[in-house]
Amino acid sequence: MMADWLVRLEIQALFDAYCDCLDNDRLEEWPGFFVADCLYEIIPKENVDAGLPAPLIHCDNQRMLHDRVVSLRNANIFSPVLYRHFLSAIIWQRDAADLVVRSNYLVVNTSPLGESSVYQTGRYEDRLTATDSGWRFKSRRVVYDTARVQTLLAIPI
Amino acid sequence: MMADWLVRLEIQALFDAYCDCLDNDRLEEWPGFFVADCLYEIIPKENVDAGLPAPLIHCDNQRMLHDRVVSLRNANIFSPVLYRHFLSAIIWQRDAADLVVRSNYLVVNTSPLGESSVYQTGRYEDRLTATDSGWRFKSRRVVYDTARVQTLLAIPI
Amino acid sequence: MMADWLVRLEIQALFDAYCDCLDNDRLEEWPGFFVADCLYEIIPKENVDAGLPAPLIHCDNQRMLHDRVVSLRNANIFSPVLYRHFLSAIIWQRDAADLVVRSNYLVVNTSPLGESSVYQTGRYEDRLTATDSGWRFKSRRVVYDTARVQTLLAIPI
Repeated sequence: MMADWLVRLEIQALFDAYCDCLDNDRLEEWPGFFVADCLYEIIPKENVDAGLPAPLIHCDNQRMLHDRVVSLRNANIFSPVLYRHFLSAIIWQRDAADLVVRSNYLVVNTSPLGESSVYQTGRYEDRLTATDSGWRFKSRRVVYDTARVQTLLAIPI
Repeated sequence: MMADWLVRLEIQALFDAYCDCLDNDRLEEWPGFFVADCLYEIIPKENVDAGLPAPLIHCDNQRMLHDRVVSLRNANIFSPVLYRHFLSAIIWQRDAADLVVRSNYLVVNTSPLGESSVYQTGRYEDRLTATDSGWRFKSRRVVYDTARVQTLLAIPI
Repeated sequence: MMADWLVRLEIQALFDAYCDCLDNDRLEEWPGFFVADCLYEIIPKENVDAGLPAPLIHCDNQRMLHDRVVSLRNANIFSPVLYRHFLSAIIWQRDAADLVVRSNYLVVNTSPLGESSVYQTGRYEDRLTATDSGWRFKSRRVVYDTARVQTLLAIPI
């Protein structure tokens, strides 16, 4: 039973590090949270509920995540929007050696003019796999509730 | 001392499961977080501060919670509002075999049109009791800060 | 390794108690979270990024924190604004016997008229030191993202 609590704490530590990386503008470290053969998707809840698989963003390996960061760095030269991620309701179970995890997220952003507001909420649907460096994302699906979501130039969620 | 940390993690797990249930529209499971002889109240902070006991919602057994879910399912046929709960400042102490717990909550909702915004904040005041299935709510009092609170058709907090 | 998880839980407990104190209007207890020879600063992220050290609020011992609470109590006689703090992305490391910790915060406030909204987000940069009563703040630097920040009459962050 103790082992289960440790797993919960390990998931928390991974999620803490992930949010810390994105929210403090160290995007270059972001692909390192995923394994090479990974899946990262951003998809509206509306589509998931309707059984439409079409995601807004679909990266099916770690190289695509690297490319995305490079594009963002080239595009957002001035005053990028700032994110702060907040999580809740972390639920997990084992699936063979992997962990299947879901959680709520809230992203509050602050514009270059200093206005902070709710940017989006949604649910993470994750599969974690054990590596020599600890748990990493085999897949992370970001299912967002909010309609107004910028996709081209947005920092990853 | 280790036992105390485990209790803290058990409370977290209960709260995670509670939020996950409400935020992913599995309302039918919600009464199962309470014991049969329970109390669930929603009351404005204003009333609590003024010593006025009158709650907006008062359910004093688990059957009333079931009835509430049935009403909600019948009333909200189309596009219900979506909630995401976020918690903080979980403080607890023992009272004989029970746990007395308080915490902050934030509910962000998303309208059918896809607008996400702060819906309400407040404080949970809970009494947890041990059952064969783990900790359950003997009472949960929801003390809300925010004035604009819909009560008739609202998803439980 | 177990010791490290306990430290993480101890940090969480300190942060929970700190937020609980501020959000439930027990400001008189707030200086007790700091050691006598402490530093408490509130500074805009803009200044930190530009290498400008000028903080909006600078208290370099616990007595100044006490004085601040007394001023707030004298100034805010009627209907003070209510805060709720939410934290995420708690990252820590040891520095000799101290802990160096950073985290995200979100403060949602509710006006006397009952309007709840995002008040500010930012990052805590902390140094914790062990005392007979557990971990206490040797320094807490509040780096805020949001432009609109009231400083004179504001409850501490």
